[in-house]
Amino acid sequence: MQGYFTEQSSVEAVNTRMDKSINPRLAEVMGCLVSHLHAFAKEIHLTQEEWEIAIDFLTRTGQMCNAERQEFILLSDTLGFSMLVDAINNRRPKGATENTVFGPFHVDNAPIRKHGETISLDGKGESCLYEGRVVDLDGNPIEGARIDVWSDNSEGFYDVQQPGIQPKSNNRGIFVTGPDGRYSFVGIKPVSYPIPDDGPVGQMLGHLGRHPYRPAHMHFLVTAEGFQKLVTHTFVGDDPYLESDTVFGVKETLVAPFERIENGSTLWHSPFDFVLVGR
Amino acid sequence: MQGYFTEQSSVEAVNTRMDKSINPRLAEVMGCLVSHLHAFAKEIHLTQEEWEIAIDFLTRTGQMCNAERQEFILLSDTLGFSMLVDAINNRRPKGATENTVFGPFHVDNAPIRKHGETISLDGKGESCLYEGRVVDLDGNPIEGARIDVWSDNSEGFYDVQQPGIQPKSNNRGIFVTGPDGRYSFVGIKPVSYPIPDDGPVGQMLGHLGRHPYRPAHMHFLVTAEGFQKLVTHTFVGDDPYLESDTVFGVKETLVAPFERIENGSTLWHSPFDFVLVGR
Ligand SMILES: [Fe+2]
Ligand SMILES: [Fe+2]
Repeated sequence: MQGYFTEQSSVEAVNTRMDKSINPRLAEVMGCLVSHLHAFAKEIHLTQEEWEIAIDFLTRTGQMCNAERQEFILLSDTLGFSMLVDAINNRRPKGATENTVFGPFHVDNAPIRKHGETISLDGKGESCLYEGRVVDLDGNPIEGARIDVWSDNSEGFYDVQQPGIQPKSNNRGIFVTGPDGRYSFVGIKPVSYPIPDDGPVGQMLGHLGRHPYRPAHMHFLVTAEGFQKLVTHTFVGDDPYLESDTVFGVKETLVAPFERIENGSTLWHSPFDFVLVGR
Repeated sequence: MQGYFTEQSSVEAVNTRMDKSINPRLAEVMGCLVSHLHAFAKEIHLTQEEWEIAIDFLTRTGQMCNAERQEFILLSDTLGFSMLVDAINNRRPKGATENTVFGPFHVDNAPIRKHGETISLDGKGESCLYEGRVVDLDGNPIEGARIDVWSDNSEGFYDVQQPGIQPKSNNRGIFVTGPDGRYSFVGIKPVSYPIPDDGPVGQMLGHLGRHPYRPAHMHFLVTAEGFQKLVTHTFVGDDPYLESDTVFGVKETLVAPFERIENGSTLWHSPFDFVLVGR
């Protein structure tokens, strides 16, 4: 009669049910998950009614998902789980540029542009010159690094959120460094925007007394032969949501200078160097 | 610059974001959930690829749900989470009949029947006389206790799973005890059946090397004025799945005698007393 489920032996009862011959990593992950889920229910003395609310919430979260909307990623993001997974898998030496969340708005095959070109095709927003170098941990320039950049427009929307309203590839482009490791392009000073909050995750944020905003940021995906991929943002330092990013993406080292310059039509200057780690 | 998310401070970073004025129980439950979810990811060093698999699994689980199918409850059941919540919320003194999971196949307003009547309307299966008493912890009979019973038919399906095929209310009924606390009815000796396994949870069970079967059981919902509600099953002791119920519902005290009798058309006898706890 050993092996029957009891409150005390609940984790063991479930985990010993897995067959010995299954994928060992799967067994390890599931065993750990069951252990923590049960510990949660025991620690909080979860009621039957709370369990029903949780089942209903998860169900509605799944049903909200479609080709354009991924509500479970929003849930993971707003619980800090996405950032945690990113952090665990991208521990880097001091001095290296830190990672942050990829986000849902990257597009493959953005146009490759020349140094100094603009990515702002709708002419809206405050123009900003982005420039700097891609270097290794010793400060040596990295030639041929690919810098894929994207941001929202001045109204807080990415081009893919407004097909037919924004020009295709608005505020997107790919730049490649020369022998000096330098990059430069013109974009806009990005603006803060809310994550989609008309679903279960938005309701959850409401119940938790949290806002759905991300502070203004420019996305960067920097890749170079022989170096670890860097997925990051630079953040505008005076943003009111900087210390309350709803997806917890901000790191102190990613807050970039945005200096007022008024050079012709360009109003801002944001210098930032990317430091990559060898593979 | 305090409050930015780091791997080390991840739980605090998320939980301090909740507003102080929200429902205190919600804050407690969410805080505990975030703590255990993050501990899970840290302990197992969850990879980005594993995170993507989890997001996809949860999404498909939600999308499988509709009015007839609740895949998230199946997930909770097969991870032992439903039984754990049931156990936590139904701790009873020794001698009291133990609870087990309610299951998805109960129907409100089943027909009220007289002592000794049959609930098997399709005439299939091996007939079984169920009888016993409803008593309090001191063994005193409880008059007017309502015993709501339901089981699958001899092919392993509940009537609600086969509308138009099985007669309505097949293998269901409500019985009320007299002054002696006695009940008796005729049903069938139930058979083991698989939970619905054509969705993500069935796939999960496959990857874990687990079968989807529940051992044969008769469901009981016993209520009486002044006593705690009892939700339970009795299990057939010789069932091959008794020690591997896929939803972990079996308890040693719920394995009931099923004695071969061959009294006319009745082939089995299953005596069982229900011991209720005062409120
Ligand atoms: Fe973004
Ligand atoms: Fe059942």
